[in-house]
Amino acid sequence: MSINDIFKQPIKVVNTGLASFQTNLETAGAESIQVNWRPPAEVSKESILLMEQFRERTDRANAEAMRIILSGKPVLIGMGKALDYIPGMRGDLILHSGSPVTWDRMCGPTRGAIMGALIYEGLAGSIEEAEVLAASGKISFAPCHEHASVGPMAGIISASMPVFIIQNETYGNLAYCTLNEGLGKVLRYGAFSPEVIEKLKWMEQVMYPILKTAIEKLGKIDLRNIISQALHMGDEVHNRNRAATSLFYRIITPAIVETCENKPDAIKVLNFINGNDHFFLNLSMPASKACLDAARDIPWSSIAVVMARNGTDFGVQLAGTGDQWFTGKSPVPDALFFPGYTKEDANPDIGDSAITETLGLGGFAIAAAPAIAQFVGGTAQDAVRYTLDMYQITAAENPLFQIPSLNFRGAPAGIDIRKVIEKNITPFIDTGVAHKNPGVGQVGAGVLSAPIEPFRKAYEGLAKTMKAG
Amino acid sequence: MSINDIFKQPIKVVNTGLASFQTNLETAGAESIQVNWRPPAEVSKESILLMEQFRERTDRANAEAMRIILSGKPVLIGMGKALDYIPGMRGDLILHSGSPVTWDRMCGPTRGAIMGALIYEGLAGSIEEAEVLAASGKISFAPCHEHASVGPMAGIISASMPVFIIQNETYGNLAYCTLNEGLGKVLRYGAFSPEVIEKLKWMEQVMYPILKTAIEKLGKIDLRNIISQALHMGDEVHNRNRAATSLFYRIITPAIVETCENKPDAIKVLNFINGNDHFFLNLSMPASKACLDAARDIPWSSIAVVMARNGTDFGVQLAGTGDQWFTGKSPVPDALFFPGYTKEDANPDIGDSAITETLGLGGFAIAAAPAIAQFVGGTAQDAVRYTLDMYQITAAENPLFQIPSLNFRGAPAGIDIRKVIEKNITPFIDTGVAHKNPGVGQVGAGVLSAPIEPFRKAYEGLAKTMKAG
Repeated sequence: MSINDIFKQPIKVVNTGLASFQTNLETAGAESIQVNWRPPAEVSKESILLMEQFRERTDRANAEAMRIILSGKPVLIGMGKALDYIPGMRGDLILHSGSPVTWDRMCGPTRGAIMGALIYEGLAGSIEEAEVLAASGKISFAPCHEHASVGPMAGIISASMPVFIIQNETYGNLAYCTLNEGLGKVLRYGAFSPEVIEKLKWMEQVMYPILKTAIEKLGKIDLRNIISQALHMGDEVHNRNRAATSLFYRIITPAIVETCENKPDAIKVLNFINGNDHFFLNLSMPASKACLDAARDIPWSSIAVVMARNGTDFGVQLAGTGDQWFTGKSPVPDALFFPGYTKEDANPDIGDSAITETLGLGGFAIAAAPAIAQFVGGTAQDAVRYTLDMYQITAAENPLFQIPSLNFRGAPAGIDIRKVIEKNITPFIDTGVAHKNPGVGQVGAGVLSAPIEPFRKAYEGLAKTMKAG
Repeated sequence: MSINDIFKQPIKVVNTGLASFQTNLETAGAESIQVNWRPPAEVSKESILLMEQFRERTDRANAEAMRIILSGKPVLIGMGKALDYIPGMRGDLILHSGSPVTWDRMCGPTRGAIMGALIYEGLAGSIEEAEVLAASGKISFAPCHEHASVGPMAGIISASMPVFIIQNETYGNLAYCTLNEGLGKVLRYGAFSPEVIEKLKWMEQVMYPILKTAIEKLGKIDLRNIISQALHMGDEVHNRNRAATSLFYRIITPAIVETCENKPDAIKVLNFINGNDHFFLNLSMPASKACLDAARDIPWSSIAVVMARNGTDFGVQLAGTGDQWFTGKSPVPDALFFPGYTKEDANPDIGDSAITETLGLGGFAIAAAPAIAQFVGGTAQDAVRYTLDMYQITAAENPLFQIPSLNFRGAPAGIDIRKVIEKNITPFIDTGVAHKNPGVGQVGAGVLSAPIEPFRKAYEGLAKTMKAG
């Protein structure tokens, strides 16, 4: 066939370049498909060779990591004060989300929430005092993740705060998380006004004892089962927790009624949970953490066990690289902003909540929760596409966490950072957006793709351990 | 181009015949699409001509019917005893599902449930006595639908039974339904053993006063809002009501806690609702009924306002034909049977629950609840296909009841029986399956396409009113 004959035929185009090429073809009426291909992310030649040399060994380590991660069974077993339960907690220690960060590099919302926590603890009498104390060196800061904990947004945990205690029943390890404060002015978004502190005090003094007693009455609550059902009910348990919160509420309510003698307080607690469809987020996060922590310290494994953001840096930890953090600049999310706010107001992405994506929930399971895509201006098909993309960078599918619209296919689980680098596709994350200044709070909600930098560094870091043998 | 040239080209086939033709083409590797086309159902030439002559007039009447149906706002406003509230209710009257049917033509489950109700009411001391009394002529029978009511499966309502009172706030009309009994041996599936009667008595004496008081405390509960949310959460509110039941539970619980002084009873009621994900079915049914009843008696309209089965006949009523019933033989559903049962054991399709499909929920919205298709051996894609088919026979889309996987398209609403006949596609219905013998109970759950016969008769019946002018 001569070249002229070819152009007499209808042409079908396979486009591996920019998606905008395809758009032009479509406009012109040509039949085309878009291949989602990008050149690999830039990493050193030496790392690539090491990764190739030890590919099978890494594959075996990853299989072991995934066996552990997917067989985890997170259950809520109780509540307690942070000081009494979180390993290494102290009165002068404040835990925050993401990787380690010094006061001078902390973002506005984290600073705001720390100042609020110092007032809440009675360590400072005013915001001015709190700011001086925080910068004085008398207060230590550490990542939640280094204390078996997670926190949404600023993720602040101080000594007196009540926390959920989650156990991975299969492996015995524990994880902790504070109670979700609800919407409006809240500490996790960096707000610290008197109403914020007052609500935290009510949660500590009224809500916590009631919930604690109800959980004791029940013995335990199976969080894996709730998450599993919630994915069949429109949640991805990161930015949408309406179903999971409802199912948790159904379980806890009879126990609250049975054990709480103060009826008005019981009703207030019920209405507090009812008024906050995100209540379950502070359970889906430590549930994810408990599953992933069990797979730490598996040499050679390229599976991510943490993705977390402190509002300045985006941090990653791998099963195969111990406690090492690999970080890069945290991006500002694409978001739908509340009236009066724009991207100019937005803080870079923040919070430990990306632990849900690390397990294969949240943005990875967004096809199960198309309402989230719709909320930020996308379609249900976009949501499916995001989830399908995530299968390209994951090591397994989770048979217990299913995507109904993909005919109940298991959600993509276990980020293999080799695939992230080779395919140059980074994890897709659902997120809330905080104002960049302390004391303001939430200004929007959105989605983002993780930056490539921390994954590049993680790739090099893992290669280094291979070289060392 | 000569005929020989055509066969040198890749062939694309449009198949309007049996779907199995396409399967063969696919097997052979040929590109083909299936047109879902069937010859129209057989109706008289005269009716077709009348329907054609008055097409625009019917279109206008249907537009009015759909305006009324889609603007209905069903709210739960209270509870009461059937005798005190249901119009025309009497101590010697038993209401049943579907169209009118005499004792001698009644199916096993309906007979079983009627005998159970006579014992429950204290009108008979044993099943033998109940059977004699039921056949004696001293007890009257009438369809729920003719008394502003609906009932699932056998749909039995007797004088002492407590009922939900639903008001269509927009138009003021009321609808009634009993409380859902849960799973296992239950009256609605024709069971009548002492445990069945005992549970009904507990529901009347303990649960009803508690729920009634809680609803009074709340004033009203917006059912349209709950259904709207539930469709975003994996329910179609016929065979799947987990989300709707959860949302209802979240609303009613604080009011139960506040108003009920007997804690153990309050807990029993909470656990009863918790233990029965179908609890909301007995609210989605009268909610649908309240919306559709407002559109009765609109001359010329070909919109169905009732589809209901008494276990012997499948009945249809239209907006344009007053109280007339159009009936045909009720089919046995395709179902997944519980262990030990087969299609041989199954009663023909039964219950008023197809009122949900009549409004555009249930099988019409099954794409929102793919778990139902999966349960009966289908795929999520099957569920989407069923819903897409229903757009072909409906007059409108309901902007408040959306299908997430169809990018939040409004559910197909308002069955235009002209389209049913012209396209020869009958409504798709989700259903439970009762044993054909009295006293056994549920043996499975499944799906079915309505029989064409009642729609053919309805078409002829509507044409007759056109002829009369």
